[in-house]
Amino acid sequence: MTTRWGERYAQRTERMGSSVIRELLKFAQKPEVISFAGGLPAPELFPVKELEEACCKILQEKGPQALQYSTTEGYLPLRQFIVEKMGRYGIKATVDNVLITHGSQQALDLIGKVFIDPGDTILLEAPSYVGGIQAFTAYQPCYITVPMDDEGMRVDLVEEELEKGCPKFIYVLPNFQNPAGVTLSLERRERLVVLANECGVPLIEDDPYGELRYEGDHLPPLVVLDERHLSKRSKANAEGFFEGNVIYISTFSKTLAPGLRLGWVVAPAEVVSRLVQAKQGADLHTCTFAQVLAYEVVRTGFLDGHVREIRKVYRERRDVMLKAMEEHFPEGVRWTHPQGGLFLWVTVPEEIDTAELLKDAVEEKVVFVPGFAFFADGRGHNTMRLNFSYATPEVIEEGIRRLGKVIEKRLEKAKAVA
Amino acid sequence: MTTRWGERYAQRTERMGSSVIRELLKFAQKPEVISFAGGLPAPELFPVKELEEACCKILQEKGPQALQYSTTEGYLPLRQFIVEKMGRYGIKATVDNVLITHGSQQALDLIGKVFIDPGDTILLEAPSYVGGIQAFTAYQPCYITVPMDDEGMRVDLVEEELEKGCPKFIYVLPNFQNPAGVTLSLERRERLVVLANECGVPLIEDDPYGELRYEGDHLPPLVVLDERHLSKRSKANAEGFFEGNVIYISTFSKTLAPGLRLGWVVAPAEVVSRLVQAKQGADLHTCTFAQVLAYEVVRTGFLDGHVREIRKVYRERRDVMLKAMEEHFPEGVRWTHPQGGLFLWVTVPEEIDTAELLKDAVEEKVVFVPGFAFFADGRGHNTMRLNFSYATPEVIEEGIRRLGKVIEKRLEKAKAVA
Repeated sequence: MTTRWGERYAQRTERMGSSVIRELLKFAQKPEVISFAGGLPAPELFPVKELEEACCKILQEKGPQALQYSTTEGYLPLRQFIVEKMGRYGIKATVDNVLITHGSQQALDLIGKVFIDPGDTILLEAPSYVGGIQAFTAYQPCYITVPMDDEGMRVDLVEEELEKGCPKFIYVLPNFQNPAGVTLSLERRERLVVLANECGVPLIEDDPYGELRYEGDHLPPLVVLDERHLSKRSKANAEGFFEGNVIYISTFSKTLAPGLRLGWVVAPAEVVSRLVQAKQGADLHTCTFAQVLAYEVVRTGFLDGHVREIRKVYRERRDVMLKAMEEHFPEGVRWTHPQGGLFLWVTVPEEIDTAELLKDAVEEKVVFVPGFAFFADGRGHNTMRLNFSYATPEVIEEGIRRLGKVIEKRLEKAKAVA
Repeated sequence: MTTRWGERYAQRTERMGSSVIRELLKFAQKPEVISFAGGLPAPELFPVKELEEACCKILQEKGPQALQYSTTEGYLPLRQFIVEKMGRYGIKATVDNVLITHGSQQALDLIGKVFIDPGDTILLEAPSYVGGIQAFTAYQPCYITVPMDDEGMRVDLVEEELEKGCPKFIYVLPNFQNPAGVTLSLERRERLVVLANECGVPLIEDDPYGELRYEGDHLPPLVVLDERHLSKRSKANAEGFFEGNVIYISTFSKTLAPGLRLGWVVAPAEVVSRLVQAKQGADLHTCTFAQVLAYEVVRTGFLDGHVREIRKVYRERRDVMLKAMEEHFPEGVRWTHPQGGLFLWVTVPEEIDTAELLKDAVEEKVVFVPGFAFFADGRGHNTMRLNFSYATPEVIEEGIRRLGKVIEKRLEKAKAVA
């Protein structure tokens, strides 16, 4: 009797599915397909030359160190860089508050691993980041979802939910949310921090795009507002001792290169030490070479100018997409106007199922992600996410034209049936 | 009320601890300390020049691709390389059987995630790889351990255990086991495969050192013996369709460079697809740059000669350590004679606790890993693991001299108390 594998899996495995997006990405790699599906940065902006110089330098000057096992917490100079970088956004951290991970996706997995018992409740936005849902779902939580409007998560509804009971944590993407493209307003941020503190419920703040703002003013992250809130009551916090209620996550994937798989967590030292234990078992440590390499590129201050360049290019692409949608999308289709980030969110008339629509789109060689993938409970049948960072302006224009045609046809078909 | 973090963690987090080894490694990084503690490859053997050339080449020729998001399964040419490499060892795999992971440590974590429900039983060697225990423990299994002798795991005792009940899987390191340094004999391998097939229990074969054999003949891995066994009954297997009972794990950490964090799994396609789902949630995919880089170096056949070089150096270091122990270790101390790999296993007289001994050793500026760390149940108080790959022959000689002195002193003290 050989192993019957199907009978061997853990219960959690039954709840795992493949990410719709990652499956789509395989298809979208065909050169003739216009993809609005992935969250891919524009590859022509990758700092290839700087990375090549850095590779040579580090291999010549510290090759053995850059290729050896290293500590689970991460490469110390890179952690120090993160501390300084965070400091510029008002986050008072020390290296003990910083853990380097294999992308922010790993941070989400480690948080799930350290915090979630089966049946625990997680409160999150609807829609939310599909990778977050995927990471957490492996640890078998229940979800409470709170809808969003143009100012982000409906914090008044969070308050209602908290009155009913205290979830294990609240997961929120305040800036240019993936997938909805909306930003949590300052007022709501402040209110959310107070609410979370009142209940003693941790906030998981996922901020991969915070630096990629194309208009409007920077808003302080929850972790900063939380520190300010706590400083009023605790001298230790006022002096800059990083404590509090928020676990902050970010990444180099959108500003440097996603293929390096480098993200980070900023959290109270106590939490970092738990995440470190979980990471030891998960993969020992983050790729030493990628860490040393990234540090060599960023330590010169290179990122500041580079991020300005990325902003300029992505802002143009966003504007081209918005304009093309005005032109090519039929009446009754609505979309968000993101102030930054990589995505916008489209709502088509009720009678269209975007999962079905995708089949027509594939035939027209344009792809997007159907919105249901971003809801923990499978809602959002008439929504979709569009990425505007990857394709060039000409391609975006053409892709939206194709998509408009596909939506129009579906609408006509729906009308004919009715 | 700020979050009381200690009350927030999942149950599994309570069972997580820091790896003794990784904590020791931090101490061992001080330059004056002689470390037999880590499993560090000799850094002077890292192919720094080849990697530098490869970095330049891939960044010039396919920089954007090497820096972009990529598929969860891994970089296709690297997976194809693994298929060919495995084929040379008699493993009939296709790319659908191969998943690239962030080191073999991640493979262990993903296997734990996909297979272990809380309370499931895992059968493993005593002592066993501490990282394996750490990865699995996060999923809250119970352990059954089976002792080893000079021919490896006591498979007769495995048989006794299987008669009592069927564990979720059997975890085994057949070659130059970490930490014990012993090798599972051919006869026992064959018997283990038959037993596992009779019960339908999967074998997890962890083989990080298989290529690093310094004497004796290569023995077929369990995955090959399993295929042979199944081929007798199933035409599909006889034709090379990779199925069966074994999940095989290996790594580039010992043959190329551990800082790249590249390992792989070879398993039935059905199992690989589950591991891929788990990996999506865990970190999306393995560092693209490290994969493309490794492939660029290995595709030329470079590893064959390089592994011969590593074998030569490590064999010498092993011999120097064995000779120095003969000379400097007091009577009553025993050790294994590994035919390959990176470690040997020392048993000191019962009255010495190696965790206590380590304190003396630290004062003499030499470190090792106390044996208890490698037992799922904390036994092995009078054992230790020594690594012979990292230090140069002169340093090994000096370190063993210091360690001999420390053991001798402890023995005298024990005698005086008695």
